[in-house]
Amino acid sequence: MKYRFGRPFPTDAVIKQVPLSSGSPAHFSLSREGELVTLSYPLSEGDAVYGLGEQMRGMNKRGWRYESWNLDDPIHHESRTNLYGAHNFFLVFGRECFGVFVDCAGRVEFDVGFTDRNVLAVTAKDFDLYLFEGASPLEIVREFRALIGRSYIPPKWAFGFAQSRWGYKTEADIREVYENYEKAGLPLDMLFLDIDYMERFKDFTVDKTRFPDLKAFSAEMKKKNIRLVPIIDAAVKVEKGYPVYEEGKKKGYFCTDEKGKPFIAGVWPGNSVLPDVLNPEARRWFGRKYKILLDKGIEGFWNDMNEPVLFYSEAGLKEALRLASETKEIACLDDYERVSHAFFSLQNNDDDYRTFYHETENGRIVHEAVHNLYGYNMTRAAAEYFAEYAPKKRFLIFSRSSCVGMHRYGGIWTGDNSAWWSHLLLNLQQLPGLNMCGFLFAGADLGGFGGDTTEELLLRWLALGVFVPLMRNHCNGSRPQECYRFTRTDVFRNILGIRYSLLPYLYSEFVRCAFENDMLFKPLSFCYPEDRRAATVEDQLLVGDSLMIAPVYTQNAAGRYVYLPERMKLIRMKAGDRFTEQVLEKGEYYIPVALDEVVFFLRSGKVLPLAKPAKNTAELDEKNLTWVKFTETPVQFTLCRDGGTSEIGKEDFETVTVEP
Amino acid sequence: MKYRFGRPFPTDAVIKQVPLSSGSPAHFSLSREGELVTLSYPLSEGDAVYGLGEQMRGMNKRGWRYESWNLDDPIHHESRTNLYGAHNFFLVFGRECFGVFVDCAGRVEFDVGFTDRNVLAVTAKDFDLYLFEGASPLEIVREFRALIGRSYIPPKWAFGFAQSRWGYKTEADIREVYENYEKAGLPLDMLFLDIDYMERFKDFTVDKTRFPDLKAFSAEMKKKNIRLVPIIDAAVKVEKGYPVYEEGKKKGYFCTDEKGKPFIAGVWPGNSVLPDVLNPEARRWFGRKYKILLDKGIEGFWNDMNEPVLFYSEAGLKEALRLASETKEIACLDDYERVSHAFFSLQNNDDDYRTFYHETENGRIVHEAVHNLYGYNMTRAAAEYFAEYAPKKRFLIFSRSSCVGMHRYGGIWTGDNSAWWSHLLLNLQQLPGLNMCGFLFAGADLGGFGGDTTEELLLRWLALGVFVPLMRNHCNGSRPQECYRFTRTDVFRNILGIRYSLLPYLYSEFVRCAFENDMLFKPLSFCYPEDRRAATVEDQLLVGDSLMIAPVYTQNAAGRYVYLPERMKLIRMKAGDRFTEQVLEKGEYYIPVALDEVVFFLRSGKVLPLAKPAKNTAELDEKNLTWVKFTETPVQFTLCRDGGTSEIGKEDFETVTVEP
Repeated sequence: MKYRFGRPFPTDAVIKQVPLSSGSPAHFSLSREGELVTLSYPLSEGDAVYGLGEQMRGMNKRGWRYESWNLDDPIHHESRTNLYGAHNFFLVFGRECFGVFVDCAGRVEFDVGFTDRNVLAVTAKDFDLYLFEGASPLEIVREFRALIGRSYIPPKWAFGFAQSRWGYKTEADIREVYENYEKAGLPLDMLFLDIDYMERFKDFTVDKTRFPDLKAFSAEMKKKNIRLVPIIDAAVKVEKGYPVYEEGKKKGYFCTDEKGKPFIAGVWPGNSVLPDVLNPEARRWFGRKYKILLDKGIEGFWNDMNEPVLFYSEAGLKEALRLASETKEIACLDDYERVSHAFFSLQNNDDDYRTFYHETENGRIVHEAVHNLYGYNMTRAAAEYFAEYAPKKRFLIFSRSSCVGMHRYGGIWTGDNSAWWSHLLLNLQQLPGLNMCGFLFAGADLGGFGGDTTEELLLRWLALGVFVPLMRNHCNGSRPQECYRFTRTDVFRNILGIRYSLLPYLYSEFVRCAFENDMLFKPLSFCYPEDRRAATVEDQLLVGDSLMIAPVYTQNAAGRYVYLPERMKLIRMKAGDRFTEQVLEKGEYYIPVALDEVVFFLRSGKVLPLAKPAKNTAELDEKNLTWVKFTETPVQFTLCRDGGTSEIGKEDFETVTVEP
Repeated sequence: MKYRFGRPFPTDAVIKQVPLSSGSPAHFSLSREGELVTLSYPLSEGDAVYGLGEQMRGMNKRGWRYESWNLDDPIHHESRTNLYGAHNFFLVFGRECFGVFVDCAGRVEFDVGFTDRNVLAVTAKDFDLYLFEGASPLEIVREFRALIGRSYIPPKWAFGFAQSRWGYKTEADIREVYENYEKAGLPLDMLFLDIDYMERFKDFTVDKTRFPDLKAFSAEMKKKNIRLVPIIDAAVKVEKGYPVYEEGKKKGYFCTDEKGKPFIAGVWPGNSVLPDVLNPEARRWFGRKYKILLDKGIEGFWNDMNEPVLFYSEAGLKEALRLASETKEIACLDDYERVSHAFFSLQNNDDDYRTFYHETENGRIVHEAVHNLYGYNMTRAAAEYFAEYAPKKRFLIFSRSSCVGMHRYGGIWTGDNSAWWSHLLLNLQQLPGLNMCGFLFAGADLGGFGGDTTEELLLRWLALGVFVPLMRNHCNGSRPQECYRFTRTDVFRNILGIRYSLLPYLYSEFVRCAFENDMLFKPLSFCYPEDRRAATVEDQLLVGDSLMIAPVYTQNAAGRYVYLPERMKLIRMKAGDRFTEQVLEKGEYYIPVALDEVVFFLRSGKVLPLAKPAKNTAELDEKNLTWVKFTETPVQFTLCRDGGTSEIGKEDFETVTVEP
């Protein structure tokens, strides 16, 4: 059922035409305040609310409020109400079971039992509301996912391990990291190039002094089965003679201010302009720029700063400077607060998002109204061009900012997180919500992007990361955290090896989930809906059809508690080819988990294919699989055995019957 | 054993003379870099490190680094290395068992297996090092506590429930809160006055328009058994004609800059000066100022902003303004970063702490070298004067900033926390460390000071708070969180009632711990040192001699896991006079805990006295106690039955024999 409120800007989130229903949406009561519409639903004591993509807090979103308003906050803590993505789908599971998608380009607020424990309220203007009814959470998710279209599938090598750091500046830096991984026998598939590879942070340029011949370097690394993955930022530097700037300016492809002049804001390159990716012509133009790097042999990209981030607007900064220069003497605290606030509030200021415009197929529109579509359409620009550049080839593309709809074009990482134990747990808790909203290829910066990680935190985080599609160790200028930087390189080697052993399973299940609109990561209650205890478990996940995980996410732990909603087999893995098995009955357990092992659970009646640990995806032997089994009857498992770089067809799936 | 490094400034932390030992301290290897001394200890795999007072992270401090450098950071997250207090005692428990006290007035760094998982390193200059050997952690703590002297004991009414908020501005505001508590039947003992009661934030003034007659109001409230507890800030407003400023300036009682002029910094009153509480004469002078409020019937105070906080130094702000006014055009990001950084870095800037001085008995000394003594001596100023004002009377005094030594003069609250679930757990984890360092009267802002609390978070936090000596609900200008603001006032009433039922136990145990240098809150491993599993439990505490607590600290939980290191009796309390009992064997449990109950455990062979719930401490009936028992033989329990407001003598203790 679809309902319309106000005049929604088309988001292209859904791929099917749904006729508008008349009357009021079921479940909700409606109220209006100006243009804002609030839909309220009375929550019952046992109701849980799942969804909202990468939002903060638990899998059950009840007990807090959230906003869809894409924002970069690298030190997001529990008070945060919004992050990098606008993932406006959720479902209520309890007394009733139904799903809701708020298809909206602008701000949406979700009060999930925050103001009143027993009231769920959604507030927005100009949106389409889709309601989904179904017998179970999973059925509802599948209905929604069918509506929004098939999730992006990256090349198979993108499931390998990636090392990244904001701080690698030169070819020599990258080469050194590669050599250290090689020397230490640590598996690796990708090395990421952060903004320093560019010439003064100019998109689609390469600093020649740092990377004299990126094409040759990329080819050399590819021979070693390593892909280089450069970053692309949203904003384009204002610089005379810089072709991207000159061209875009001439053609009117940048967002403009009220007077029709390019809107100028400060980002990494200094004063910059924003490509108007909501203008289809400008989007095509921006997408074609990726050719510059594709021609150098690059096959993967990450799109960043596309919320879009504004360190300052030119106008805002001038005003702050003016205010400061007028203040000669501080008479009272108010003076200080006024001036310092002018600087503190420059970054990503809501007011600035009201001062620039897009030229869309639906006319000129203020950014604020379509804010959440920006990163989505930047990534769409790239993906649409890739399809033109090499029609059947799969490229790696993932983005920091996103919106439902973008899930068809690329993946995401969950943005700039911190080296916190709580962000390890957040990583786990974000995954089912992302899957519900179509984002299957996703991951968090393992070890934490900001702040200083520790060996223990990184090892525990990797023990979750081995199950997550995008497995990237990435950090900023703080403590170096490559896997060879600590005391126990042997343990890192074993844990990365486990990732490769799991790949036949993870990749096959990932592709299946994309084709079947299934979730790779599910809360326990999605598979055991009758189990009241399972519904309260917030730190375990089902991964694909066969596995349950329960990673350790606290410091100095010798293990953790695990709830088994059914009889399962505990697998204790020291390396991909060294593990023990133990059958456990349904119930509550304290499970010891050492720092040098990955512990997980095989469900009843299921099997798990394991490859031998490998150096990289290209060298992975997927022919000779070991089957871990917990079954007394033959079980079928469907492997995806495609080449990993082109379109996947029916012929790529092989259903294997595994004997007990 | 005592060792000296450099020329330590006397902190008066210890009360006993210990002769200096020659040679090197046991356990550690020593290295020097300039004046800095580093003591390193090789950690074994199972070693735990306890202590460091209110520092972040778990009870076992291993796996992170910490600094003693008193600082106000109201949104302290996992990356934080220092908070409000300098609590330089820790002990290693594992292969060896020993304690360490770094008696130092300045900065101390503790790298507890952060840089290298297996190395503990302490770095400082100018300090005395005390080493403690003992058979058990508790024995070592008692040695240390005997050295630093008996902990502060507040009046008994300070163990009642307190409501506070930065935002109550007038007598009418306070009255309204009182009346709402009264009307809702919610117990209450104290109402706090935050900075708005003062005349333009001037210490020891009362805004006459807001509180026309504080003395009368205070007397009226006291008749209702409510104490008003005003705040005192460290900094004194620079204002002509303001007696405290004029007097202090004339007598040279404020900290001075390099040129000997009063050092000026911005705090709540705007430009302010800092009383030189390290100058004994100035300290006496500042302490005598409390008389102004004592004479109005005030019997309790909280000392704040005494790290001391500097929003800016006059010199720093002028420099930032100059920089801004010189910057007319932003050519590149560096320009923006330079100017904005100048404003971002004004607050509590390390450089500023190097630009002002104290006149001490040991001569003129730069603030940086004695930074951690400031809050301590501000509170000592008050406490020393109270002893003069009414020699045998107990006053309530607690401070935000502190240092070992201050524990003899007052309590603390753990500063500005946030309405985060992680800060509920942090509250629990800080308590044993604080007890180890002598701080028995302590507590956190229940519900969270900053950010918006929720009904669920506040209820769960109160279910911990009922066991904590200082039980205060305090918040800033965000969502109001008085106990009558939510849907289930009846549940709040019951939970506050439980506090009063527990008071005979809590108060008696508190006083015993103060007299016996015991800890009110202990990690499990302190009582079950042979139990390897107990050593890894980071979210349960022993409270006094009889109880173990295991509060719920996660959102949407229906219960939690609990480890029982021995046979215990589970007490499930809906109200102080309504509870059930259930015997559980040693082991691991998942324990359901509803939002409307307080669940805790009575140890084997122990008893718990319970009073009837009361409106306030004055109306508490301590004669008619119910004894909850888990014993098969008679058990003795010592009650402290003093009047609650004057010195406690042997005659105030009554040992009761409780029959099974």
